[in-house]
Amino acid sequence: MTLPLTIEAQAGAARLGRIQTAHGAVETPAFMPVGTVGSVKAVPQDVLEELDAQIILGNTYHLYLRPGYELVRSLGGLHKFMSWDRALLTDSGGFQVFSLGDLTKVSEEGVTFRSHLDGSSHLFTPERSMEIQIALGADIIMAFDECTEHPAERERSRASMEMTLRWAKRSKEYFEAHKYEVPWNQAGMAPSAPALCGIVQGGMYADLRRESAKRTVELDFPSYAIGGLTVGEPREKTVEMIAAALEVLPKDKPRYVMGVGYPQEIVQYAAMGVDMMDCVLPTRAGRHGLLFTSEGRLNIKNARFAQDQGPADPKCGCKVCARYTRAYLRHLFVAAEPLAAMLNTIHNLAFYLDTMRAVRHAIRLGDLSGMLSGVSLA
Amino acid sequence: MTLPLTIEAQAGAARLGRIQTAHGAVETPAFMPVGTVGSVKAVPQDVLEELDAQIILGNTYHLYLRPGYELVRSLGGLHKFMSWDRALLTDSGGFQVFSLGDLTKVSEEGVTFRSHLDGSSHLFTPERSMEIQIALGADIIMAFDECTEHPAERERSRASMEMTLRWAKRSKEYFEAHKYEVPWNQAGMAPSAPALCGIVQGGMYADLRRESAKRTVELDFPSYAIGGLTVGEPREKTVEMIAAALEVLPKDKPRYVMGVGYPQEIVQYAAMGVDMMDCVLPTRAGRHGLLFTSEGRLNIKNARFAQDQGPADPKCGCKVCARYTRAYLRHLFVAAEPLAAMLNTIHNLAFYLDTMRAVRHAIRLGDLSGMLSGVSLA
Repeated sequence: MTLPLTIEAQAGAARLGRIQTAHGAVETPAFMPVGTVGSVKAVPQDVLEELDAQIILGNTYHLYLRPGYELVRSLGGLHKFMSWDRALLTDSGGFQVFSLGDLTKVSEEGVTFRSHLDGSSHLFTPERSMEIQIALGADIIMAFDECTEHPAERERSRASMEMTLRWAKRSKEYFEAHKYEVPWNQAGMAPSAPALCGIVQGGMYADLRRESAKRTVELDFPSYAIGGLTVGEPREKTVEMIAAALEVLPKDKPRYVMGVGYPQEIVQYAAMGVDMMDCVLPTRAGRHGLLFTSEGRLNIKNARFAQDQGPADPKCGCKVCARYTRAYLRHLFVAAEPLAAMLNTIHNLAFYLDTMRAVRHAIRLGDLSGMLSGVSLA
Repeated sequence: MTLPLTIEAQAGAARLGRIQTAHGAVETPAFMPVGTVGSVKAVPQDVLEELDAQIILGNTYHLYLRPGYELVRSLGGLHKFMSWDRALLTDSGGFQVFSLGDLTKVSEEGVTFRSHLDGSSHLFTPERSMEIQIALGADIIMAFDECTEHPAERERSRASMEMTLRWAKRSKEYFEAHKYEVPWNQAGMAPSAPALCGIVQGGMYADLRRESAKRTVELDFPSYAIGGLTVGEPREKTVEMIAAALEVLPKDKPRYVMGVGYPQEIVQYAAMGVDMMDCVLPTRAGRHGLLFTSEGRLNIKNARFAQDQGPADPKCGCKVCARYTRAYLRHLFVAAEPLAAMLNTIHNLAFYLDTMRAVRHAIRLGDLSGMLSGVSLA
């Protein structure tokens, strides 16, 4: 299905736009909070709405294992299951399976893996990933890819890229035949379908990235992602790989870098012309007491915050910064109170979403230089 | 300080009223959520306000150990520390120390105990409990008592009751000399003080309960609590002990039963003329997946809820029941998502607070029989 991108303003390579999904519009550049197993960890859906999250992610691997895609489909799909009527994106399961390491075995057919929960054996193929994602019913779903390990030799990276291309073709074929089977379509209503996003691989070789982008575009997807990054490579390499792919990817379609990043990274990639990004960092770091602020990162458990009556971030207008002190946040974390994870995560998501809002504002004004001045590649 | 109770309506022994504290009024009969270490576990303060909790509890033992009462005082007291400007009550630390069992040693002076956190040794005396509670700065603070173990022989229960009476006198003496030292008083403003609540003990002997009540009243407190219950005795015995104390306690002062109970219990005790109750049950049970509903208790992890698209409680208007299904709540719990504890606890607190609201409404209408019809002593 198409995933129309309306570009409203540009500043250099950066684009301010709006992507129309089957469940509402998403202003871009967008940061997408990760809701691994059908919940953005520690944050209720009404708070995500207050934060103005317009799209969130679900992880196919996790949802497949628990509660199971057939259950989710039978209950009307992930939107209905988790009571989220804005846009959703699911990943293909490929990256998560890749993360299991020794528990996986890759063949032309697909990936055999063992569940991290109970050790049971499962097979993900491009067709199966499509079947599961269509059953979950996100608005944007991802082609099944192989995330190339790092480091990898050139030939290994090429072979992996070729596999991803063959899997992209199989993903698309299955998708086209079944895309209207999403659980949100109802009898008597005009059917709609999700959008399938192709994924660029190619390891850490710029020419392979360009080739992967070119041949993925030839397969014709409504949107393109750049995968296989932040797998241990230095930041400069990440930037180089993104730049190589962006050279080739069409400018009129949404471009998504998967699994990034720190606040200064997401600003930088947006400046390069990336439209969508997702990362567990704000949520995971929040649960570990790491706060992102306009003054840099704070480890809230640090004793120096014990009597600090200021908010987590004096420049932040989120509901956590409006109400609670660093001293209280530190206490909650040290005492292992459940509220610690919740408040820290809400603040971090607010910081990320505010950062993207500021990026969009700067693009509208035609100048991202102020936002980029704090960006370093280190 | 006085803790004026305005009685607006009665139905049998039950009273509908309003207690005025230094931080706002509390409608009674009231159920008080427990915020052990400065947070009602898994529930942000704005949600407690939405639920219309008018008073919450803090535990002196826990706050003394972490973050420490001197820290809380230096930051302006517990209200300011946790950003809660409604009424607060702290317990004396006696019950929690009692719960440590083998880690404690009781003498005339007070109770020596070892921290459950690091094994360090501490002494709580009546004077020390007052000092700590005044530093925390709750609106209602509790005399330091000995919670008699169960079962206990008559002579042991009497001796323990006598100790509690001597400690009540010492508590009051220290309190009267220091009550204006609460952190909320500021230079140039008319000083106000918290209210000290006396505690009735007497084990499981009705005559000792009456004697304890009579002699505690002779010490003259603005409010009286009935402590040392739900320590393993049958429900009939709890009811008998409450009834014995209520016979003696003055009708024009707030009467508080500590540490109760199940929903039908709090209805029953309110019907007997109790004005305040607190219990960890709705919060603790919520974290363990036990939901209180108009249809009885649900263990949300039960497989029969896996596809249940109904709300936790079809008669409940809380934000959890308005938005999420039993199937989703079950999934969150089974997947150990942080949102499970949060949503379950919010629903349970809503159920308890709604129950008390219904009790107050019934008293205003002059008839609690409908609410009591479901109450059994079993």
